[in-house]
Amino acid sequence: MKINVLRLDHRFVRDTRITTHVCLTARAFGASKVYLSGDKDNKLIENVQDTSNRWGGSFEIEYKKNPMNLIDQWKNEGGEVIHLTMYGSQVPKVIDEIKASNKDKLIVVGGSKVQIEVYKNATWNVSITSQPHSEVSSLGVFQHMLMDGSEFDLKFENPVLEVVPLAHGKTVNINNENKKN
Amino acid sequence: MKINVLRLDHRFVRDTRITTHVCLTARAFGASKVYLSGDKDNKLIENVQDTSNRWGGSFEIEYKKNPMNLIDQWKNEGGEVIHLTMYGSQVPKVIDEIKASNKDKLIVVGGSKVQIEVYKNATWNVSITSQPHSEVSSLGVFQHMLMDGSEFDLKFENPVLEVVPLAHGKTVNINNENKKN
Repeated sequence: MKINVLRLDHRFVRDTRITTHVCLTARAFGASKVYLSGDKDNKLIENVQDTSNRWGGSFEIEYKKNPMNLIDQWKNEGGEVIHLTMYGSQVPKVIDEIKASNKDKLIVVGGSKVQIEVYKNATWNVSITSQPHSEVSSLGVFQHMLMDGSEFDLKFENPVLEVVPLAHGKTVNINNENKKN
Repeated sequence: MKINVLRLDHRFVRDTRITTHVCLTARAFGASKVYLSGDKDNKLIENVQDTSNRWGGSFEIEYKKNPMNLIDQWKNEGGEVIHLTMYGSQVPKVIDEIKASNKDKLIVVGGSKVQIEVYKNATWNVSITSQPHSEVSSLGVFQHMLMDGSEFDLKFENPVLEVVPLAHGKTVNINNENKKN
């Protein structure tokens, strides 16, 4: 099962950090690719790709001018679309149904305003609590529930940087032979 | 068990949205209070309190000039301190131990740089994956694991705004009688 994330309606400057956190969360919790829509922020794309290169694995990020086309195409190719929104069905009520199929998943997280077509065309509209909080925490918790905790066992191949988990302190292994440039 | 969150090293402007998302995530996933340290951002405190008032419950936010004192005091009063850091022990290895005690929990999330004393004085330093992503998703996933999903059943009393979960669409109940001002 492939997991991709679509970030709607990114805005230059204002959304830079939140969108960066969305992309890195997607990667850390098992997505292989993020599609970015809204402003075409090449600097952000480059920074995320650079972080990914340093920490390993094969994560991709790609700009999509028309996100609705991506949603339609994803479904036409047999995949499922999960739109995370505080207005949607409560995640505990739908997560088993979502996990029951092995179809590719496109997880959509909103920007400042989300077109009604996204609500209509999503396979599921899902809320991670019905309270206001963050697309970043919604995405992390949803991916965690979708992966059933297996994200903690993911291997990111050929990392330059690699944390050695410690109860107290900081250790990072540096593998310069994995540097891409 | 009381759950509070300490946000270290907040910076004006640069961190406004991330810190706001930290605060709202803390609230949505069951924390009763956030302590903010770093820049004394009264506007942010007011905005978070305002959102909380509209969506119900009794969440608090308070500025702490000296966060190390808070950590010491929390432990002196019998509570436990969990510092979320990508360098810490992997969460699947320590979550059962953390959940085993019913002691009050202070969850610490970092800012740009975290003093070594935080690593030393925390009861646990815990990583939510050892990959770089976000204090917002780390907090959400950790609180979700700590609450065992019971955050989805939380009631936020006397809300002005209240979502009616829907498979497709948006409905918000407005209860003007709960307005505080």
